Amino acid sequence: MSHPHPELGPPPPLPAGALRIVPLGGLGEIGRNMTVFEYDGRLLIIDCGVLFPEEEQPGVDLILPDFDHIRDRLDDVEALVLTHGHEDHIGAVPFLLRERPDIPLVGSRLTLALVSAKLGEHRIKPELVQVAEGERHRFGVFDCEFFAVNHSIPDALAVGVRTPGGSLLHTGDFKMDQLPLDGRLTDLAGFARFGDEGVDLLLSDSTNAEVPGFVTHERDISGVIDKVFGQAGQRIIVACFASHIHRVQQVLDAAQEHGRKVAFVGRSMVRNMNIARDLGYLRVPGGLLVDVKELDAMAPNEAVLISTGSQGEPMSALTRMANRDHQIRIEPGDTVVLASSLIPGNENSVNRVINGLTRWGAKVVHKGNALVHVSGHAPAGELLYVLNMVRPRNFMPVHGEWRHLRAHAQLATLTGVPEKRVVIAEDGVVVDLVDGKASIVGAIPAGYVYVDGASVGDVTESALKDRRILGEEGFISVIVAVDSSSGKLVGEPQIHTRGSGIDVDAYDEVVPKIQDALERAAADGINDVAQLRQLVRRSMGRWVNETYRRRPMIVPVVLEV
Amino acid sequence: MSHPHPELGPPPPLPAGALRIVPLGGLGEIGRNMTVFEYDGRLLIIDCGVLFPEEEQPGVDLILPDFDHIRDRLDDVEALVLTHGHEDHIGAVPFLLRERPDIPLVGSRLTLALVSAKLGEHRIKPELVQVAEGERHRFGVFDCEFFAVNHSIPDALAVGVRTPGGSLLHTGDFKMDQLPLDGRLTDLAGFARFGDEGVDLLLSDSTNAEVPGFVTHERDISGVIDKVFGQAGQRIIVACFASHIHRVQQVLDAAQEHGRKVAFVGRSMVRNMNIARDLGYLRVPGGLLVDVKELDAMAPNEAVLISTGSQGEPMSALTRMANRDHQIRIEPGDTVVLASSLIPGNENSVNRVINGLTRWGAKVVHKGNALVHVSGHAPAGELLYVLNMVRPRNFMPVHGEWRHLRAHAQLATLTGVPEKRVVIAEDGVVVDLVDGKASIVGAIPAGYVYVDGASVGDVTESALKDRRILGEEGFISVIVAVDSSSGKLVGEPQIHTRGSGIDVDAYDEVVPKIQDALERAAADGINDVAQLRQLVRRSMGRWVNETYRRRPMIVPVVLEV
Repeated sequence: MSHPHPELGPPPPLPAGALRIVPLGGLGEIGRNMTVFEYDGRLLIIDCGVLFPEEEQPGVDLILPDFDHIRDRLDDVEALVLTHGHEDHIGAVPFLLRERPDIPLVGSRLTLALVSAKLGEHRIKPELVQVAEGERHRFGVFDCEFFAVNHSIPDALAVGVRTPGGSLLHTGDFKMDQLPLDGRLTDLAGFARFGDEGVDLLLSDSTNAEVPGFVTHERDISGVIDKVFGQAGQRIIVACFASHIHRVQQVLDAAQEHGRKVAFVGRSMVRNMNIARDLGYLRVPGGLLVDVKELDAMAPNEAVLISTGSQGEPMSALTRMANRDHQIRIEPGDTVVLASSLIPGNENSVNRVINGLTRWGAKVVHKGNALVHVSGHAPAGELLYVLNMVRPRNFMPVHGEWRHLRAHAQLATLTGVPEKRVVIAEDGVVVDLVDGKASIVGAIPAGYVYVDGASVGDVTESALKDRRILGEEGFISVIVAVDSSSGKLVGEPQIHTRGSGIDVDAYDEVVPKIQDALERAAADGINDVAQLRQLVRRSMGRWVNETYRRRPMIVPVVLEV
Repeated sequence: MSHPHPELGPPPPLPAGALRIVPLGGLGEIGRNMTVFEYDGRLLIIDCGVLFPEEEQPGVDLILPDFDHIRDRLDDVEALVLTHGHEDHIGAVPFLLRERPDIPLVGSRLTLALVSAKLGEHRIKPELVQVAEGERHRFGVFDCEFFAVNHSIPDALAVGVRTPGGSLLHTGDFKMDQLPLDGRLTDLAGFARFGDEGVDLLLSDSTNAEVPGFVTHERDISGVIDKVFGQAGQRIIVACFASHIHRVQQVLDAAQEHGRKVAFVGRSMVRNMNIARDLGYLRVPGGLLVDVKELDAMAPNEAVLISTGSQGEPMSALTRMANRDHQIRIEPGDTVVLASSLIPGNENSVNRVINGLTRWGAKVVHKGNALVHVSGHAPAGELLYVLNMVRPRNFMPVHGEWRHLRAHAQLATLTGVPEKRVVIAEDGVVVDLVDGKASIVGAIPAGYVYVDGASVGDVTESALKDRRILGEEGFISVIVAVDSSSGKLVGEPQIHTRGSGIDVDAYDEVVPKIQDALERAAADGINDVAQLRQLVRRSMGRWVNETYRRRPMIVPVVLEV
């Protein structure tokens, strides 16, 4: 099993007859899944998703894969295959299509509907190739076969790719609920057939590789939701992901059963449920849906809201309800159901929302106290089935942080994949499949590309570092005007500060020190602005550190007048 | 059961013969526990702890209770009783004693040793009153009885307080391991006797009120640690809280058993273990301990490190090991045990540490995959025992966020405490016990007091708000010099930015707009600096928002020359 190689150099040219695999995202992290396959100079991409920022990336809206590796070769791309419609698989498509709008997008009916709606908002009209499970489509040298997989969004696909350089199976995200709500099973029989043919490389979802056992059936949630509805005396508010159509269906069914009306809250929830309904993925009994405004006029025990905000997003309806900052006022007796996973990193904000709702008297049902969520990803028990069915010659765990990739690699070796045929790669690590053997041959840059507001990529690591310092310590800016010829101070230094917590009056103590330093410099004939700036920074920095033991950012400005 | 009363006014004067309870911290949050009891003009304080900041309080080191409510009455304080030696119960003592150094500190032997060491670092020599379970001590009108309680630090106490105004029992933090490692049980029999006498008010630890059932025995961890030691081929690194003496004892015992030597890493770990050893709370076989430098010379399979950093603290040894930024280099085959809880809010940093360690080949054992931690707080099953034994006339859940307080209140009513005798208070909510009935009578300010660097309280909410904006968006500062009489621009506007992600060249576009605006103002005869500043802010803000859809802080500076 390979260990990380921080010393990896650029990869050699791809040998004739070899297949190259370059993960641009999703390996070493949960999100921005994107893998590029290359054979004979032609490229196939599977997925193109976004990563959501953590507190280490303050102010960032989205994180994209770095397209640099393929930027000059976009015309070589035969197709972009989208395994399913989640943001971490389709979210970066608009940004890639800005660079070449006619890359064919390949996916299932629902996936293409969701990505089209998203592209519509970016005013991009894509070329779509709709596919379905059981079908085989050729994109240049890439002969793709699609397999049904069960996941937390309908219509997800795994992709088998046959090339003259070898064949591979990419599972996408999947789990193996054996009693799925829509009856659409993960096509393990198809995986087995493909395995019989000989799969050179399996790339499989590692998200839950550390979790032992098997998934709970999605349908087991129905009973719990029914019980919650039966006990609720007042309003019911259900928060879940805007893409979780099956979960929403269960809530609609319970509402119908208990004689309540339902309103959708949140832009993405309304948009996705309209798409799902139009395409027949969501069954909505007539008269069940009402507008959120109509709910106000109804008795609380007749109302259900289905809302986004299950991750405690600051601007979401649910967070604003928790803060009493929303038209819907939580009252004692209301029931709030958080019917979703808790994405790592959101614990604090979700906890704050639970406390806020509880404070106002709501009963909060969440996965910590009731079975109102099951994961969309196969745990270890199910991953073993896939490994044993496919019997790949080489294995590469994908979609996961290091802990997940290692755990999945371990499972692969337990099923008999030789250790040296298990490749643990990170984003940017280049893997070549040569003569049936996969190995790491180099690395290309695959860093984070930040979207902040309207622009992509101009917020850099250095800007983020500045933000982290400013966010922790604030800044003090010292503005001095000097005579351009003599370097002598003109007037008094001006001091501006934000976030330093050091009161404006306190600076009376340091201003004379700065003046002193500048006078001495002038006497020594120093009039270089950079030097004077350095002098001001040092005088202020030393004083703040000695007096307050803090290190705010010091921004010296020297104006020549 | 009471609901929050945001409209509460200041409390009325305390009626004669009544007992007043004022929680200054720990109600509505986990941390900075501090409660003030008042009878006949005299005060008793139980605990004086700190709260650790979350990402909402950037750059803050510690959060203290607001002492304002008692600041003018410090001479009325008969004693400060410390239930045990955890930071969230003793951490703010140095800050209170700065204001009156001779407040008698009452606590068990270990608690006083820990708080004394802490006060020594602040150069404060306190007045100590050592007490033990089963003892009764009178502090003015407050007749205190101490009960042994079992917790995740040795020598913890609950406090019964008898006053002419009524009697109360404060559990402190506790759990009820029935087979504790040191044989020191929570004194349920004592609680029962006190209950027989009639307890007017029970204040009880709510941290785990949402968790059903009973604690796992601390000693069950020993078997797991032994197994980990048996399987480890290379170095073993155990991270846990520096106060968890029993956990450390178990690791020392396992090391002795498996013929390994142990080094302590981390200042607080070394300090606390010295204290615990000197006082006989930690048994260290001769020759077991070595200096961390000596470990380098030893074979990896002979070495154990016990370190802080189990919460992924950025500067801790463990985090630096995960980042390959520490003299101890993680190698494949090393075993790291995170033998502690995961404090909410630290999930991301701990996850990063686990991924970092895993990346370098370490096997990471944590509470997610092995029984290497049990909580120090009583879950619901045990809380019910206490409620049933004490049978209080009134109940007030303490130590917890809203979700925990409500869950505990619910348990109390299930045991028969009448709903109207269950008081859910928040920090600052004043509860009076009058004629055997506890009720909310008002509220006093009990906000956060921030420690940042050397100073207390000068970092305000407004500075934190600025830090949050700066941390998300950075700032742009625009400096213009104007002629003091005409208001006319002198020279070019200077622009400085950090963290905005907007390149310096981009401002060429906005500088003429600012110049224009100033010229028009000068033509209109505007030379008021505040107005000019506003003008500059608006020109820059509008441009940034329109061009980049971002809202960095704009800091306009107008220099009159």
